[in-house]
Amino acid sequence: MRPPVKILTEADLRALVPLDAEAVACIRDAFVALATKPVAMPPILRLDIPEHRGEVDVKTAYVPGLSHFAIKISPGFFGNPALGLPSTNGMMVVLSATTGLVEALLLDNGYLTDIRTAAAGAVAADALARPNATRAAILGAGMQARMQLQALALVRPLAGATVWARDAGRAHAFAAEMTATLPFPVSAAVTVHEATEQADVVVTTTPATAPILHRVAPGTHVTAMGSDAGHKNEIAPELVAAAHYVADRLSQTRMLGELHHAGLAGDFPELGQILAGLAPGRSDALQITLADLTGTGIQDTAIATLALARASGAGAGQTFTL
Amino acid sequence: MRPPVKILTEADLRALVPLDAEAVACIRDAFVALATKPVAMPPILRLDIPEHRGEVDVKTAYVPGLSHFAIKISPGFFGNPALGLPSTNGMMVVLSATTGLVEALLLDNGYLTDIRTAAAGAVAADALARPNATRAAILGAGMQARMQLQALALVRPLAGATVWARDAGRAHAFAAEMTATLPFPVSAAVTVHEATEQADVVVTTTPATAPILHRVAPGTHVTAMGSDAGHKNEIAPELVAAAHYVADRLSQTRMLGELHHAGLAGDFPELGQILAGLAPGRSDALQITLADLTGTGIQDTAIATLALARASGAGAGQTFTL
Repeated sequence: MRPPVKILTEADLRALVPLDAEAVACIRDAFVALATKPVAMPPILRLDIPEHRGEVDVKTAYVPGLSHFAIKISPGFFGNPALGLPSTNGMMVVLSATTGLVEALLLDNGYLTDIRTAAAGAVAADALARPNATRAAILGAGMQARMQLQALALVRPLAGATVWARDAGRAHAFAAEMTATLPFPVSAAVTVHEATEQADVVVTTTPATAPILHRVAPGTHVTAMGSDAGHKNEIAPELVAAAHYVADRLSQTRMLGELHHAGLAGDFPELGQILAGLAPGRSDALQITLADLTGTGIQDTAIATLALARASGAGAGQTFTL
Repeated sequence: MRPPVKILTEADLRALVPLDAEAVACIRDAFVALATKPVAMPPILRLDIPEHRGEVDVKTAYVPGLSHFAIKISPGFFGNPALGLPSTNGMMVVLSATTGLVEALLLDNGYLTDIRTAAAGAVAADALARPNATRAAILGAGMQARMQLQALALVRPLAGATVWARDAGRAHAFAAEMTATLPFPVSAAVTVHEATEQADVVVTTTPATAPILHRVAPGTHVTAMGSDAGHKNEIAPELVAAAHYVADRLSQTRMLGELHHAGLAGDFPELGQILAGLAPGRSDALQITLADLTGTGIQDTAIATLALARASGAGAGQTFTL
């Protein structure tokens, strides 16, 4: 007998999967699995529709031992804001890993991607930032800027944060909103240097196509999560070269990430290898560390499996009998 | 305002999209577009899950001028029959080509793939078989064997058909069922030679991994549609070499189709080029023609767009407001 298909909307998923320590632990486990298990993660399928300024990425990954795997569809159509629509949205299809049957449709409009991306930032900072890091700097003032700062506050005892954005008005709005939301003050900076000079952790969340961050103080940890396509670039090559460089997936950051632009040869550790104790993390309090996060299908499979387990436990969503 | 998502089940889709002349015309148009428009059709994303004898293919294509495009998820899990489940199933996600928003979920369990695959067989036979072809031979006795014969009857005035299958009992059941369904007699043959020696059109629909069809009479058209993976092979290399060879997508048949096994170099026409008058079809009544069909994302986008247009016209399906 074919099991019914469960359908969860964005509202369902926002209630079921908040950005919390469990979401961070779920993504941490996914990175460990990537380093220690024979995970199957094929290259991203990408379709470009230039006449509508559109692109679609499809990602998937299978993790041995997980009951399900997700296929994520992520469209980005950059003329949408002029139509009053969000430029990015998308959904996930969750299949049984044992039968391949479609078991759930997560109509999340990209919400779970936001969560798993923010959670990966927290995992990277937790693995690489100094344990006593208290000051954060966020470059960019969009949705991921907000979520990266919230995620960082889950893994380090933050006492304050600064934000820089190309649009000063958006930086000020971000600072006011986050100061009201979080238990520490957030202020807007006029330059990248002003935002980052006192920071222990810097997170770059912009769609920049030329470097915006050129140098940081000794001991700083940098998470670069804005670059998910070959033309994007946030970090200057000399900073990549000076840092202890860590990839989410090395084969991918060589194509899409900051490593691609730095043009460095040689081997570099992946975040999961550090978490699993298979590669060295931060060596000392003065080392600069850099996590290059381009986004991986295993994060999608992990967060989707968490969402489905919680939905089943809570009896959430609607079911379709086929 | 974000449009709601329409959900159509297999039962909805069976009612909306039968195998008829319009479905054949829809797929014919898709092949013409492939030859004449800047279609975007990325390589197939494939995930293998060997411990559960599972595989998943994801296909997509964008056709300039069509309002939508489909992303098709096709799992095949070959231990499923032992669990009382079908080995293949799957669904399509239909997105707006202008905004990338998910507009429909076609929970078809692979039904639309069956239709677009059968329709492609009819398009190929219509383009390449002799106009007066009346006798068909079908190799294999599964779902596609049935549908290919039905599709062929839409484009040629069939007077009779023979079927061969490795399992003689299944061939006899096929013959009885199809004789009751179609307006001409269908008989079971004991050997491939007996099935095909009098045939004007031969359709191979098996999962064979070594050639089953070695020779046909002059003037025969062969449609080979069983091979959709590198290890599958139905047609002997000498027959491929002797025939006027036509690919659905040459870059794909070089990897997955009969051409792959024949090991022939050189250039070959695609079906769409022949339909568009850009490459020669059958030269004379004695030529052997061979269509090598591996399945393309453009067929999925075309049939999904047809299904969605009909569903909108009929007010079919359920809608989810997100």
